[in-house]
Amino acid sequence: MAGSERIRRVANIVRRQQAAGHEVAVVVSAMAGETDRLVNFCREANPLYDPAEYDVVVASGEQVTSGLLALTLQALGCKARSWLGWQLPIRTDDAHSKARIGEIDSDALLASMAAGEIAVIPGFQGVTEDNRITTLGRGGSDTSAVAVAAAIKADRCDIYTDVDGVYTTDPRIVAKARKLKYVTYEEMLELASVGSKVLQTRSVSLAMKEGVRVQVLSSFIDDDATPADEIPGTMIVSDEELEGLDMESQLITGIAADKNEAKIILTRVPDRPGAVATIFGPLAQANINVDMIIQNVGRDKGETDVTFTVPSADLLRAQTLLEAQKEAIGYNRIITDGKVAKISVVGVGMRSHAGVASTMFRAMADRGINIQAISTSEIKISVLIDEDETELAVRVLHTAYGMDAADAA
Amino acid sequence: MAGSERIRRVANIVRRQQAAGHEVAVVVSAMAGETDRLVNFCREANPLYDPAEYDVVVASGEQVTSGLLALTLQALGCKARSWLGWQLPIRTDDAHSKARIGEIDSDALLASMAAGEIAVIPGFQGVTEDNRITTLGRGGSDTSAVAVAAAIKADRCDIYTDVDGVYTTDPRIVAKARKLKYVTYEEMLELASVGSKVLQTRSVSLAMKEGVRVQVLSSFIDDDATPADEIPGTMIVSDEELEGLDMESQLITGIAADKNEAKIILTRVPDRPGAVATIFGPLAQANINVDMIIQNVGRDKGETDVTFTVPSADLLRAQTLLEAQKEAIGYNRIITDGKVAKISVVGVGMRSHAGVASTMFRAMADRGINIQAISTSEIKISVLIDEDETELAVRVLHTAYGMDAADAA
Repeated sequence: MAGSERIRRVANIVRRQQAAGHEVAVVVSAMAGETDRLVNFCREANPLYDPAEYDVVVASGEQVTSGLLALTLQALGCKARSWLGWQLPIRTDDAHSKARIGEIDSDALLASMAAGEIAVIPGFQGVTEDNRITTLGRGGSDTSAVAVAAAIKADRCDIYTDVDGVYTTDPRIVAKARKLKYVTYEEMLELASVGSKVLQTRSVSLAMKEGVRVQVLSSFIDDDATPADEIPGTMIVSDEELEGLDMESQLITGIAADKNEAKIILTRVPDRPGAVATIFGPLAQANINVDMIIQNVGRDKGETDVTFTVPSADLLRAQTLLEAQKEAIGYNRIITDGKVAKISVVGVGMRSHAGVASTMFRAMADRGINIQAISTSEIKISVLIDEDETELAVRVLHTAYGMDAADAA
Repeated sequence: MAGSERIRRVANIVRRQQAAGHEVAVVVSAMAGETDRLVNFCREANPLYDPAEYDVVVASGEQVTSGLLALTLQALGCKARSWLGWQLPIRTDDAHSKARIGEIDSDALLASMAAGEIAVIPGFQGVTEDNRITTLGRGGSDTSAVAVAAAIKADRCDIYTDVDGVYTTDPRIVAKARKLKYVTYEEMLELASVGSKVLQTRSVSLAMKEGVRVQVLSSFIDDDATPADEIPGTMIVSDEELEGLDMESQLITGIAADKNEAKIILTRVPDRPGAVATIFGPLAQANINVDMIIQNVGRDKGETDVTFTVPSADLLRAQTLLEAQKEAIGYNRIITDGKVAKISVVGVGMRSHAGVASTMFRAMADRGINIQAISTSEIKISVLIDEDETELAVRVLHTAYGMDAADAA
């Protein structure tokens, strides 16, 4: 069974950490495929499911893994016990199926760990004040891990994923991508929000807020090949810690590509105060996240084209909404394009260096890649391009910023 | 999926009961095959598993079903919610994997039911004073159902099984077996303990102690075919209730056969005080349940043969133990026979009628069936015979006591 093989692998990693002198708490996710199986049961039972009962069903996946990991650790001669969300408890609000963690009572946990017991905690789950089970939404196990690490004031929160760290860009696109030793919380947030799927955004925000040092590393690496105190992952740290490390300064940390954006253009919108509010108000109310916004002023007197992006999954809904508001907004035509990609370069070094944007624009122009929109933050520049040019753009930029690994093919 | 089909069937039954004016609490077991799957996970993880962690894993099966049944009921338009063992709570002792139910707090349950909500409760599970999950051991869902029924003072506890009631004997052996409308707790206990597998013994004992009227019926019966107030199962009731019913008096309620017994004969045991204690003391210490005991006195002066039965599964262990005690006991030879069956006739009518035993012995003698041992209780007569004659004996007795259904083939 793939499930128990994976659990055994995790147990061995945990045992080595304990043997290296650490007190260890482990936060586990469900076995591969298990959450999907449980979600399907719920959909079969009731397509419009009650999220409170959905949580009762779906939280069982992590419950099973936590019991099994405790048993596996015991088989390896370790003391171990499971602590379910309601047992600690891990308090959350009552937004079932997408709850947010409030307080974690760590007293019992710390006492158990001090007594040499490895604590095994199901991720993704908590309990409301009313003692009902909640889940945190997909990817919630990362958030649980960070929250537990914060509660017990852990030295480090290691998150084992199916990749061995954070790369300068997707290694499937750029063979010369390098694994980063360090990345800051903010960089990680920008990378996560633009399509680098290593960690869930919420877990990174929480780590930043609580000051938890997070390490991303792979559970598939042969853990006997590396010494216990040198783990080949990527550390996510604060700006201050990064500065203190006296690292070789890097301008750009990573390049991310996101194909899940769609572009909407409204032509000839009246250029008067409040016009933009009539466009974006209804979208916000419908919980549609608008990202890049460009207003091309001055095309015709008193009129302007408005371009913006929404998540591809929300494109149809946004279009329907905007068409219903055509009179109120007063635009001429609506043009949509689902075949766009957002390419972002991210790096805290940008703050103190000029010329990052111009390097980007020149490199893309040299290869004839047309930029349809631009948006920037303090540590990020994003451009919208034709989806077909995604891989080309990423490779061009990776080389332009001098990020290619020397020894890779 | 067989699982969700079964859940939909149960949901329909529950809805009909509510529509008939009842407040309903449902106790559910795991989906078919699920408990075995979870138990196997535990064995893979740790063959010598910690029962506390085993319970964390295995209790999840019922948790899933309770959430899914609540969702399915909601899809049918009913108000419903799940109440996990730790939420009520259902307190148990801390004998993990075979815990016994103590107190059930029914306040929240009753309030929810009074508000028109169907309560869905996972069977087989509870929680210790230390807030750790327990399970009750195999078949524990029946016991949970009876315990919940007692706690909420239910009018009736319906137990849906894969048979549609309690029969005079196994219908696979006797085509003319009749379904019983009523059976008393004591009769049911005797029938259960001698191999009629309809209900777990513990659940019947608890029902008797708490005075819970239990009905056994099938979840496979088309519930639209029978009116809501006439359910074609078997009611398990007290002696008093049965007397009050003015039923046609029945001498024998049922005939059960049990092939899971093995016979042990110790020859030429010294016939002196305390000899028997040296035999049965060690067996009791090893938790081996000795059933029928016969002492053939007077074969030789001062010596006796001792015959008794133990569960087949314990035969080897018992034999090893007794061989180790050969000197102490002072027997000559040990003879074992795993090919025996215990045939029992059960009925409260026996108390007031003589001749039940002689009818049994004559009917068996007429067909040349040799009786190897006899044991009796107030409402039961059991005989030990050659296993090959099991079906013959059951059929002969079913006819001899006039129990054959008139209209069956």
